Amino acid sequence: MPTIVVDVMPKAELLDPQGKAVAGALGRQGSTRFTDVRIGKRFELAVDGPADEAVLAEVREIAATLLSNDVIEDVVAITVVD
Amino acid sequence: MPTIVVDVMPKAELLDPQGKAVAGALGRQGSTRFTDVRIGKRFELAVDGPADEAVLAEVREIAATLLSNDVIEDVVAITVVD
Repeated sequence: MPTIVVDVMPKAELLDPQGKAVAGALGRQGSTRFTDVRIGKRFELAVDGPADEAVLAEVREIAATLLSNDVIEDVVAITVVD
Repeated sequence: MPTIVVDVMPKAELLDPQGKAVAGALGRQGSTRFTDVRIGKRFELAVDGPADEAVLAEVREIAATLLSNDVIEDVVAITVVD
């Protein structure tokens, strides 16, 4: 059964307070190599049947409407695994 | 500047209520091809300098300690992009 992974990230021009908090924690624990951290979401959709073009088109529609808020987020990748 | 992506998902044996809610919403709107949805986190760490083995080792350590809770989550992938 294929799985389709949808990655959603906060838009680059928006602050990401959760990411800033993690970046601050990294700095305080001495990991100074990391200049920025951003935190988004990873959705794994299990598909019943083949992950063909029709399913991918449906996933693109779902990603844009249900899985992300296009005011503040971008769908950065849709990938088929398995 | 390379970016290291860390993907964290809820463990397979745990319920994922957020994922179940999305799966339910998909079913109600007529997208019946999707049998399961799970929702995890995607961290993007911007690295100052090359993403060499030392940095990756540090990221593995950070992923296991700071970015995930190993009681309920698995680090499923650590990937270098750019």
